[in-house]
Parts: sequence; C-alpha cells; structure tokens
Amino acid sequence: MGLFSKDIQTMDDLFVHTLQDVYYAEKRILKALPKMIDNASDPQLKQGLTDHLGETRGHVDRLEQVFRMHGAEAKTVTCPAIDGIIEEAEDVSGEVEDKSVLDAAIIASAQAVEHYEITRYGTLIAWARELGRQDCALVLEETLDEEKAADEKLSTLAESRINAEAELVSEAR
Amino acid sequence: MGLFSKDIQTMDDLFVHTLQDVYYAEKRILKALPKMIDNASDPQLKQGLTDHLGETRGHVDRLEQVFRMHGAEAKTVTCPAIDGIIEEAEDVSGEVEDKSVLDAAIIASAQAVEHYEITRYGTLIAWARELGRQDCALVLEETLDEEKAADEKLSTLAESRINAEAELVSEAR
Repeated sequence: MGLFSKDIQTMDDLFVHTLQDVYYAEKRILKALPKMIDNASDPQLKQGLTDHLGETRGHVDRLEQVFRMHGAEAKTVTCPAIDGIIEEAEDVSGEVEDKSVLDAAIIASAQAVEHYEITRYGTLIAWARELGRQDCALVLEETLDEEKAADEKLSTLAESRINAEAELVSEAR
Repeated sequence: MGLFSKDIQTMDDLFVHTLQDVYYAEKRILKALPKMIDNASDPQLKQGLTDHLGETRGHVDRLEQVFRMHGAEAKTVTCPAIDGIIEEAEDVSGEVEDKSVLDAAIIASAQAVEHYEITRYGTLIAWARELGRQDCALVLEETLDEEKAADEKLSTLAESRINAEAELVSEAR
C-alpha cells in the first residue's frame, strides 16, 4: 500500500487483487494438503484428499491462464484468511489423539478450506462477468465446480462413515 | 494445550471445541460488522448488514443455549480463521478509494464471513446428530438457515446492482 494513495481504484484492480489473493491461497493449500493426507487414517479420506491435491495443481494452472487472458502478471498477495484457516486446521489436528476423531476434524478443516475457495471463486466469476470477461468466468467456473464437488464428497464421507466411527470410539471410552 | 496430553479425546470434545470456536467467531463478527456498515454506501447493503448484525446477536444467544443444553461452559477459544478473514476484509477495504468499488469489496468480504459460518454450522449439525443431540442440531439449523439466506441476499445485491455500478465508475475513468 502506498502511504498516500490507495492501490485499488477500479473494479478491474479489485478483480486482479482477488485473483492474486486466491493464487496465494491455492499455493498455500498445495503446501498444507500433504500433511493432512499423512494425518488421515480412513483410506477413502486419504484418497479423496490426494485426488484434491491433483485438482489443486490444476487450479493453480487455471489461475495462471486467467492472469494471462486478462493481461495481468501472475503474482500473489498474502491472504490472511487462508493462513488463518490453515493455522486453525493445524492447531486442532495437534490437539486430537484418536485417529477416527482426527479424521472427523480433518474433514471439517478441509471443508472450511473448500468454503473459502467457493466464496472467492463465486465472487471472481461475478466480477469477471461484470467486466465483460466471460472467457475468464468460464475458466474460473471449472474450478468452482470442482471445489463444490470436493466439499460435497467430504460431507458424504463424514455423514456416511467417519463421524459414526468416531462416535463409536468415543462411546467405548 | 497440556504439554504432555492432547485436549481433544472424543467426538464430544471436538464438538464442544468447535462450539467454542464458532462462539469466538460470532463475537468477533459482532465487533467487525459496525465498521463494515459505516464503510458501505449503498442503502440496501447498509440495511442488509444492519439486519445481519441483529441476527448475529441472536446467533450468539443460540450458541449459549446449545452450550447449556449440552451441559458445557459457554466460553471461547481463539479462532485464527475468522481473525484472518476479518483482517483480510479490513486490509482490502483500506485499499479501496471509490465508494461503489468499496461496496463490491464489502459484499465479497461479508460473503467470506458467511461461508466460514456456513461450513462450521454444517459441521456442528452433523456432529450433534452423531452424538444423538438432535435438540442441539435443531437450534444450530435455525442459525445455518439465516447464514445461508444472508449469503444469498448478498449475491443477489451484488449481481443486481452494485457490481454494475462499480463497473460504470471504473469505465468512466
């Protein structure tokens, strides 16, 4: 931020700033996912997170494509939101002993990450359309669809198996 | 956290920990909303955020009700996720000069807050059901419905008016 001027003047500036924010977030998630995969015990959860790691690499590529299409430099700005969401995920994981309770905590953390991405991509798509960048909106929609599908898979997994297993463990204590 | 033991042993512990996390988040949002209302220019946005401030007070009350129903003390644990989301909202607002661009940024920030709450309440409801606390789940569902409705209102407002106005301002430069 300049000392005497504000950096975001137009909707175009706000769009590019938010692209940079999400670009940072996707790269931060790429670093965080392997640890979540290591900590997970349920094979379906491990596989789901591993699949999403591959998708996340694709999301980074798509953002670079959108930067190019829009004639903006692909760079990051620090995103305190994703830093906080991941810090919280790691704090909670560090507090959980039991493996099935940890799986339930990992699912919840992964869903918090997904929801952050869902809201940001939803915003970027709306702004791209307003700016007449239907081409950028279409690319961003592919990612949004994958984020929503990942969130739904995590909900299904949580409701069908993991929460019930964790609860059985808790009752046995 | 104890030095040699982990604090979250059971699904019940994880449920109560997450209630405490969301209790902190709702109180943090109560403090952040008045500044967002002050910064907003569009009358419908100002009114929408003001209405949500009232709803948020109700969400705090409902969480206290759930703590009581579950026999747990109503206390907070620091929630780095909401701290990061609100820090980011304030950083971006500080960078925007134009009023209609600022309105678009405020809507996006408010939606990031809503999505964090949507994911956390969704998780709490699933866990409450697994723990046989249908009574708690029903109370939490009332809040989840209000968070989803607030998010949808913000999307409608953004798409119908504010983004287009901000874009007109940007084009006029």
